[in-house]
Parts: sequence; structure tokens; C-alpha cells
Amino acid sequence: MKLATFTTDGRTARVGVVEDGAVRALEVPGMIELIEGGLDNVQESGETLPLDGVRLLAPVQKPQKIIAIGLNYRDHAEETGAPIPEKPIVFAKYPNTIIGPREPIRIPPITEQVDYEVELAVVIGRRARNVSADEALEYVFGYMNCNDVSSRDLQFSEGGQWTRSKSLDTFCPTGPYLVTRDEVPDPQDLRLRCTLNGEVMQDGTTREMIFSVAELVSFLSQGMTLVPGDIIATGTPPGVGMARDPQVWMKPGDEVTVEIEGLGALTNPVKAG
Amino acid sequence: MKLATFTTDGRTARVGVVEDGAVRALEVPGMIELIEGGLDNVQESGETLPLDGVRLLAPVQKPQKIIAIGLNYRDHAEETGAPIPEKPIVFAKYPNTIIGPREPIRIPPITEQVDYEVELAVVIGRRARNVSADEALEYVFGYMNCNDVSSRDLQFSEGGQWTRSKSLDTFCPTGPYLVTRDEVPDPQDLRLRCTLNGEVMQDGTTREMIFSVAELVSFLSQGMTLVPGDIIATGTPPGVGMARDPQVWMKPGDEVTVEIEGLGALTNPVKAG
Repeated sequence: MKLATFTTDGRTARVGVVEDGAVRALEVPGMIELIEGGLDNVQESGETLPLDGVRLLAPVQKPQKIIAIGLNYRDHAEETGAPIPEKPIVFAKYPNTIIGPREPIRIPPITEQVDYEVELAVVIGRRARNVSADEALEYVFGYMNCNDVSSRDLQFSEGGQWTRSKSLDTFCPTGPYLVTRDEVPDPQDLRLRCTLNGEVMQDGTTREMIFSVAELVSFLSQGMTLVPGDIIATGTPPGVGMARDPQVWMKPGDEVTVEIEGLGALTNPVKAG
Repeated sequence: MKLATFTTDGRTARVGVVEDGAVRALEVPGMIELIEGGLDNVQESGETLPLDGVRLLAPVQKPQKIIAIGLNYRDHAEETGAPIPEKPIVFAKYPNTIIGPREPIRIPPITEQVDYEVELAVVIGRRARNVSADEALEYVFGYMNCNDVSSRDLQFSEGGQWTRSKSLDTFCPTGPYLVTRDEVPDPQDLRLRCTLNGEVMQDGTTREMIFSVAELVSFLSQGMTLVPGDIIATGTPPGVGMARDPQVWMKPGDEVTVEIEGLGALTNPVKAG
């Protein structure tokens, strides 16, 4: 099932099921409440809207956590010259980064080197603490596209911590849908691509992940409780702008699309400000 | 004014004004709503409770951001052998870390080197984006004690990123009160102490901060919108367990207290699990 958060009046966020070019509205205040209550306990409101008549928003508006994993693809670790990590590298993006489809990525004056990163985002479905990798996927509600937008000049000039460079406003586009787990039988066999102004910049596969989705959920849940709506951005394949020769940075006027097999395409314009 | 989040039944969190050994309940659903709406727009409910008859909780229960600053005291940077940072070092703690007075700090089996860090926590009062240092303190609602509990073995064995080692459940005790800005005329002239089992481990002053509260709020607001309830943990003075000879780690059965001039004392027991 494809779930979306959408608005028809530009103010109120609603949740619905996307199918056959339409959105069927659900009677639930938000996506996290839907995840917490369970799909079986939510009624349709009876209202059906044409998909092209609504504005899609980020599926999860205010997660408690956005947990991002660095250097989690063998081929990407190699392109950056970094050693293969022995444990997942964990950093944070704050909720102010979240935007949805078509919302602009804003480049503030403090950075000049803004990069794209297509990533498979995992959305947690229920409280998880100290779960094993074998059972970890049962704690996943679904998947969505994520663009882990990164300021490279800040990332490598602020004492080694990545959180601020990854947490500027609008630096986490997600969507267009949250696709439930049952539609993604194997999260370790998905093609993922990033396109900048129509040119393919990243074209990889989740088979190259060093730590699988199940391993990440298990690892992160050790001593740190994951809750419904938490987002895990699972790392990016090769082709980032930083590792290209010459390097490529996003600039106002650009348009960037990330897309993962079965999850739709997420396009955002890039603007200054 | 000293504000507290408290409960009388163990389930419902309420907000009140603490004065003369009593709590006067306010008619507001939570601390963040109080901050957003402004103190002038909140009524007292008329109910007054003896302070020792209520259980105090963390003043801000679910902030959007907990932003922590590393190595922000000259004398602490020196004790760790780190160079004096040229820019603030920013890392995240997730909201699952928040606990209040008397709640146990839990040491999970994945770590053996758990350290204390007394820190002045700043609570943001209104939306701040690209504010100057001159005006930054106007965006501060108030201050509270914070213990930036840290797993040192994880901090230095996970690829250089500090977020996970600082984000285990219960690793951010705060309180007992949120003290409004007007009661702290100079945040750069406060004594702060940490006591472990009655022994003073840290005894410093905010005069030693490399980046002042105003500079931090201004810096962090560049390109990253701060919102009411956001917490900034502004770094710790010398005396952390990691830098002592022999090193000192917190263990089950310990009791740790952090206290800053004018902000009360925050005590937490340490337990396994």
C-alpha cells in the first residue's frame, strides 16, 4: 500500500491511500498516529481525490528521530577513499530538514558545496529496543525515498561532526509515498538512482549495503529505543558530487530527483535562501 | 520564575510555577505550548500543591532538537588534549535520552565507560533563523541543568561520530526546573558543578566557554531554524571521568548530581539495564 500525507488547502495535512491516480482520505490525524494505531484500525473517510489535484507533503512530518548512516555502501566508501566501516556510522538530521515532493531545497549563504545523496529511508512501525537482526524487519512499517542533502564545506570544517552540515533547513526531502513493508519483499535488492537536471548521477543497488536494513534496525535499537515514525536513512551509493571529477554541487535553478524501485520518484527544485 | 513539569498520578504531565516550596498548576497542556503561547497568556488553575507531594519530570518532554556542543570550555578542551575549536562542534542527542530528576540513568550492556558532564542547557523561546549574536538572547526562554551523559567507549569506536554514544536511553537528565531568562542576568557568569556519590568531580564557571550562549544561538540559527522548546547543551567544564587519572566511570548504585548557580540541583541514580 502507498500512503501519502497531502493537503488540499495548503494548511491542513491529511493522510490517504494512493492508488490508480487517486488519493482515498483516511480518518486519522497524521501518519505517525496511523502507524501507532495500525492500518487495520483506520477508516476511510469516503472522500476520494484525484492525485494531481492534491499537494503531496513529506509522508512523516515530525519524526522523533532521523537517524542517518554514513558510508554504508561498499562502492561509495571506496569512491570517497574511506575504509569500510566495522560498525555503522551514525549521525543525526533534525526534523527542520524534512520537506516533501516539489518543495525547494534551499541553499543558505553559509555553504557553497551542497551535495545530493539518494537513500533508502526506513520508517519504524513499533517500539524497538534490543531487537535481533532476525526479527528486526517486523519493526519496520515501510520505506520511502530520501535525499540526504549535505553541505560538504561544513561537513569537513566543523570539528569532524556531521550533524549540522546535514541539518540545514530543507536538507531532507522524503516521499512522495510511504510504501508499506509488504510491497518491498527484499529491501536488499532495490535499484536506486539520483538524477540532477536530467543527468543520472547515482545508479546503485541496495545489494551493496555494508549493513543491511535488518542489521541497522537491530544495531540502532541496542540501548536506544526506536519509536513509530522514526526514520533511518540507510546510506548512499556512489556518484555523489563530492567524489566526481570535477566535483558537482547543486545550485539554484537545478532540479534533483531520487528514485528507488517501487517507491516512486521524488523531485525537488533547488533555490537560494 | 521557576517552571516545572510534574505529575501527581504518575501518568499525566502538568506544568506549574514553583515558589516557596509549592507548585501552582497552570492551565496549559505542556511546557512547549506554554513557551509558544507566552507566559502572559497562561492562567493559573487555582490548584497549589506542596513541592514534596509531586513528582518532577523533565521540564521539556519532547523537544524537536537537542543540540549539544563539544569541547566548549577552554579548560575542558585542554584536559582532553584537544585543540581549541575554531567553530562550535555540534552533535545531536535524540529525545529518547530525556529524563527528569530522580529518574535512573540506565547503563545498557553495550557500554562500560559511562561518563557525566554538567552542562548549562538553553531552551529556545521563539523561532530563530539567521539571528545575530547581539539579539540572540532575546530568543532564549530560559535555562536548566543538563547532564550530557556519554558512553566513551562508543564515542571513540564508531567512526568518529558522537551522536549514538550520546543518545542512549536516559542519557539526558534535565531539570529540576526551567528557569526563565530574567532570573539569569548573565549566563556567562555561572558556577556549575557535578558531584558523584558526594564527591565533587567538576567545578567550573561558564566564563570559560569558548562560544557564549549568544554566539551559539546565533551560529546554530544560520540556515537551521530553531523552534520553541529546542534545547542547546552548551558544553562541559573540566573534571569528566574520562580525563581523570585513574579514569572514573559511572556504575549501578552511583548517584550523580549536576547543579548550576540559580538553577537548582538535578540528582539521578545510576542503574543497570
